[in-house]
Amino acid sequence: MLQSLLFTKTRKDAPKDEVSKNAELLIRAGFIYKEMAGVYSLLPLGVKTLSKITQIVREAMNTVSGQEVFLSALQEKSTWEKSNRWDNEVLDVWFKTTLKNGTELGLATTHEEPLTMIMKDHIHSYRDLPCYAYQFQTKFRNETRSKSGILRGREFLMKDLYSFSKNEQEHGAFYATMQEAYKNIFSTVGIGSHTYLTYASGGSFSKYSHEFQTVTDSGEDTIFICERCKVAVNKEIIEEQSVCPVCNTSTLVAKTSIEVGNIFNLGTRFSDALELTFLGEEGKVQPVIMGSYGIGIGRLMGTIVEVLSDEKGILWPQSISPFLVHLILIGENEEVRKKTNELYMGLRGQGIEVLFDDRDLRAGQKFADSDLIGIPYRIVCSEKTFAQGMVEVKTRSQDTAHMLPIDTIATRGAIDILQTL
Amino acid sequence: MLQSLLFTKTRKDAPKDEVSKNAELLIRAGFIYKEMAGVYSLLPLGVKTLSKITQIVREAMNTVSGQEVFLSALQEKSTWEKSNRWDNEVLDVWFKTTLKNGTELGLATTHEEPLTMIMKDHIHSYRDLPCYAYQFQTKFRNETRSKSGILRGREFLMKDLYSFSKNEQEHGAFYATMQEAYKNIFSTVGIGSHTYLTYASGGSFSKYSHEFQTVTDSGEDTIFICERCKVAVNKEIIEEQSVCPVCNTSTLVAKTSIEVGNIFNLGTRFSDALELTFLGEEGKVQPVIMGSYGIGIGRLMGTIVEVLSDEKGILWPQSISPFLVHLILIGENEEVRKKTNELYMGLRGQGIEVLFDDRDLRAGQKFADSDLIGIPYRIVCSEKTFAQGMVEVKTRSQDTAHMLPIDTIATRGAIDILQTL
Repeated sequence: MLQSLLFTKTRKDAPKDEVSKNAELLIRAGFIYKEMAGVYSLLPLGVKTLSKITQIVREAMNTVSGQEVFLSALQEKSTWEKSNRWDNEVLDVWFKTTLKNGTELGLATTHEEPLTMIMKDHIHSYRDLPCYAYQFQTKFRNETRSKSGILRGREFLMKDLYSFSKNEQEHGAFYATMQEAYKNIFSTVGIGSHTYLTYASGGSFSKYSHEFQTVTDSGEDTIFICERCKVAVNKEIIEEQSVCPVCNTSTLVAKTSIEVGNIFNLGTRFSDALELTFLGEEGKVQPVIMGSYGIGIGRLMGTIVEVLSDEKGILWPQSISPFLVHLILIGENEEVRKKTNELYMGLRGQGIEVLFDDRDLRAGQKFADSDLIGIPYRIVCSEKTFAQGMVEVKTRSQDTAHMLPIDTIATRGAIDILQTL
Repeated sequence: MLQSLLFTKTRKDAPKDEVSKNAELLIRAGFIYKEMAGVYSLLPLGVKTLSKITQIVREAMNTVSGQEVFLSALQEKSTWEKSNRWDNEVLDVWFKTTLKNGTELGLATTHEEPLTMIMKDHIHSYRDLPCYAYQFQTKFRNETRSKSGILRGREFLMKDLYSFSKNEQEHGAFYATMQEAYKNIFSTVGIGSHTYLTYASGGSFSKYSHEFQTVTDSGEDTIFICERCKVAVNKEIIEEQSVCPVCNTSTLVAKTSIEVGNIFNLGTRFSDALELTFLGEEGKVQPVIMGSYGIGIGRLMGTIVEVLSDEKGILWPQSISPFLVHLILIGENEEVRKKTNELYMGLRGQGIEVLFDDRDLRAGQKFADSDLIGIPYRIVCSEKTFAQGMVEVKTRSQDTAHMLPIDTIATRGAIDILQTL
């Protein structure tokens, strides 16, 4: 798109009360807007990036046979009383509100209970199992403090999948499948090498649950890494055992990290409380075995910014960047503008998403904006480059620029050439 | 997809307290689940259909240069006090909640105020105008009564676009563009011939605003139609004038209807209150002219069901049906199952979305489910049809079935052949 038409402008400074790097950069670059502590709105660049993350996660969930649903935020007291989670002392992050007739409602912090209620209509026999439902849905959590930008919001988009299985074996197989699906997701969005499968305490139904933790200096968590096995344990586990749970020998190294995903055995915690049962093949009525699998989509975007940024701005991975190419016009020569516009059309004709900085601004301001926004490839067009039949191409992560003949990328093959830089 | 894997099952009856046709059919067919009065969750078929409606509206908004945003639901008191809409007496559908420190928050019923606040960061000069921002966002409205299914929810998905223009002329041109965009949307989703551009009272800033009203027996509204001009006026207008506002001669005929969209001149109502100004070309600081343009996405889905349904179930238009083809296997012959599965793969290979009813159920049950769910084309495969090298094809809207040679649709050309039926 033409940058002159993008309604957001970059900012020199984030709001004074913003202390997190992720929100500071995303606000300055025009991806998000701070409504209040822990509550952010998405601006056009933010919608583009978050949609790409969402689509990557959606495709992964469809691949493991997840079926997409969208549950309500407003929640009835009676459903949550059945599982003993209505009480603010038990679940301490409720936002509650009331209907005009005085009926108290809650805003969903998570969706185990309402989805279990829905499944009572559809799961009756072993033939109805296994099944997997997931959603991308706004969660509301009344956090006491909220100083981590979009890493810990009071309102945030979450992908949550819930599995319903007939026995431990079927559940275990799916749980293992989800571990792999999550690894693939974190690799695809560009933080695979920073992200560790982390053993956490499993609750009543299994020895372990698992977190996916991304190592970064600004993390709120501490994990203990086995470099050899590429896994980690969290604080709960390190208290019980100080060696790697996989190789059982390596000493573990402490690192700060951000939890970007978790997978959890729920056992029959909710199917017992809400009476979700099925008739087994051998004719016995039994509770459904459940699991839950969460990824905070906004938190994931924030983590990527924490990990992939420098003093100048963000470095988006190609897979989730709002645009692949930032095309920058320098100078006021009309012929240069015309030819740059032709290149813009030619790149778009190749299916490439281009942000074309056609604004009347100094080169320095355009380069600073480009570094802040963080699009992977920058192509600069000026009188000087065109005089040689060239454009200047630079990746956001490298300092060196390359001169490329304009003809080599103008109408075809641009992606291949860019990716060799 | 294989219907045996779809986790939802159809139901004979809707919940006893459900009185609206739209929710009754959508619940029975497995598109939605009733959480409580006015609050519905979307099941997999519902997500598919709503996503298609959303995508049609999104493309229309992108075509008129809308930029997609996503604003928070949680709202600060101070923003809404500026426009005098925080008070429950003024805006009577607020849901309110509180932070742990006692700070009162609201759940957005609409987003004029917060978007105007955001635009204060980005609109400074006439060069920043016009601009258009839109979103698909959940609105919360504390309705006293909620008996119209998904037509009037307490929590519902809405597309709202807001326009920011430098003068009346620029605003008027965009307002006219949006009228056309809305007409196109309602035609694309299959209710164009039932939907009337309806003149409504304009408020302080213009003579008229406009609603898009879909005529149906179950409508909550009454409009007054000019058959000749294909426009209508609403109750407010008919009190002032009883002839068509376009031809100024025709007598108007009363019809019940559902409001599926509205476009509204906001003038400087919000830019004055929240101080959204810009420096004009002639050097004068002036308020931005605003407009708002809403379509309730869930309500639109409900309206389509009200208009396009019969005693057996729903009749989805092709553009928004969860699947294009309902492929139904009859009988237990393994060879028939194998050949039907080949046809399923062959249709999918043509890019056609197919729901394959591979379940072990009687033919009558499968046909009843198919009529209820409402996929446009039904293809039946049985020992009898295969013996002739045929399949039986029927559209949901017609009673007559056709026998077609299986070869004509198995690997190519199926869409063209189906659309001639």
